[in-house]
Amino acid sequence: MSQEGHRHFHDELSQVKVRLLTMSGEAEAAVQVAIEALLERDADKARQVIAGDSVIDAMEVEIEEKCLNLLALQQPMAKDLRLLVSAIKISNDLERVGDHAVNIAQSAERIMQSRPITPEPEIVEMARVAREMLSDVLEAFVRGDSASAREVCLRDDKVDALNRSVFRILLTHMMEDPHSIGAAMGLLLVSRNLERIGDLATNIGEDVVFLVEGKSIKHHAEHFGNQ
Amino acid sequence: MSQEGHRHFHDELSQVKVRLLTMSGEAEAAVQVAIEALLERDADKARQVIAGDSVIDAMEVEIEEKCLNLLALQQPMAKDLRLLVSAIKISNDLERVGDHAVNIAQSAERIMQSRPITPEPEIVEMARVAREMLSDVLEAFVRGDSASAREVCLRDDKVDALNRSVFRILLTHMMEDPHSIGAAMGLLLVSRNLERIGDLATNIGEDVVFLVEGKSIKHHAEHFGNQ
Repeated sequence: MSQEGHRHFHDELSQVKVRLLTMSGEAEAAVQVAIEALLERDADKARQVIAGDSVIDAMEVEIEEKCLNLLALQQPMAKDLRLLVSAIKISNDLERVGDHAVNIAQSAERIMQSRPITPEPEIVEMARVAREMLSDVLEAFVRGDSASAREVCLRDDKVDALNRSVFRILLTHMMEDPHSIGAAMGLLLVSRNLERIGDLATNIGEDVVFLVEGKSIKHHAEHFGNQ
Repeated sequence: MSQEGHRHFHDELSQVKVRLLTMSGEAEAAVQVAIEALLERDADKARQVIAGDSVIDAMEVEIEEKCLNLLALQQPMAKDLRLLVSAIKISNDLERVGDHAVNIAQSAERIMQSRPITPEPEIVEMARVAREMLSDVLEAFVRGDSASAREVCLRDDKVDALNRSVFRILLTHMMEDPHSIGAAMGLLLVSRNLERIGDLATNIGEDVVFLVEGKSIKHHAEHFGNQ
C-alpha cells in the first residue's frame, strides 16, 4: 500500500471507531430511557425506545458493510484485520443491547397497567452499572486499553449479584401479595435483560483484551490476571 | 495464490464448516439435555449440561482463531472473506446458545426443589422448534441455501407465540396457586431462554441470506420475499 493509501486506510479505521462510539451512545441512551419509562410509568418514553431501535439496527448494518469493504479492498495485515473483525462483533453486540432496551420498554408498557412495586433501587443500580460498563468498554476499545477492558469485565459480578437479589425480592413480593404477580414477572424479565447487557459489555471487554494482547480470556474465571 | 494453494484453502474452508456443524450439534444436544433435566427432574443431566459448556466454549475460540488465521494468511477475496466473517459470527451465536442451555439447566436445578407444574407441552414444543431451527440453519449455511435460511427465520414467529402463551399460562398458575410461584418464575426464565435461542438461529439465518444473496434482511419484517 502507498503511504497515501495507508493514511487513507487509517482514516477509515478511525471513522469505524467513531461510528461504534456513536452507536454505543445510542444503545446506552436507549437503556436509560427504557428504565425511565419503567420508573416514571411514561408510555411516551417506552414508545420512543421501541421506535428508535431502527436507528441502532441501521448503524449495525452500516458498520458491518464498512468493515467488510475495508477487509476486501485493503486486505489489511493481522492487527488491523483483527480490529475490523472485532468492530463487526462489537456492532453485533451493541445491536443486541438495543434489543434488550426494547424488551425493557415493552415490559415497562405492561407494568404500567398494574400497581407500582419495588425493587426499584436494585434495578436502577443494575442499569447504571451496565451502562457505565458499555461506555467504559467502548472507550477501552478505542484507546486499545486492555487493563481498563479487564476491569470492566470484573464489574459484571456486581450486575449478576444484583440480578440474584432482584429474583429473591420479587419471589417474596409475589408470595406476600398475589396482586403484584403480573408486575413482578415483568420486573423479573427487566432484570434479566439488564444482566444480559452486562454480559454483552463483558464480551466486548474480552474482545478488546484479545485484540490488544492477542490472548483470549473468554470463558475463564481469569479476568484480572489471577488464573 | 497457486492452484495448490487454492485447493488447500478450500480444504480449510470445508474444515471450518464441519467444525461449525459439530459445534451446532453440541449446542443442540445441550439444549435437549437441559430440557430433559427439567422434565425428568434429573440433577445429573443438569450438571452434565453445565459441565459440558466448556467444550462448546473451546470450540468457539478454536473456530475464531482458525478463521482469523485464514483471513490473515490467505487474504481471501470478497466471497470467501464474507464466509469466514460469517463463520466467526455463527460460532459466537452458537456459544450463546450453549450459555442459554446452561441457564435452562440452572433453572431446572432450582425447579426440582419445588412441586411439578405445567406448562410442559409449550416448553417442549419451543425447545423442539428452536433445536430444529438451529440444525436446519446450519445445514443452510453449509449448503449456501438462502431459501432454506429464510424459511428458518419465519419459524421464529412460532417460538415467539409459544413464549407469549407460556407467560399467560404461568401468570394464571401463580395467581391461582401461590405455592407454584417459585417454579413458575423458573419456567418463565426457561421460556425466555428458548425464545432467545430462536432469535440466535434467526440471526444465523439472516447471515446466511446476506452471505448468499449479498443482501441484508436484518431488521426487516421481510424474511420471505414480501417487502
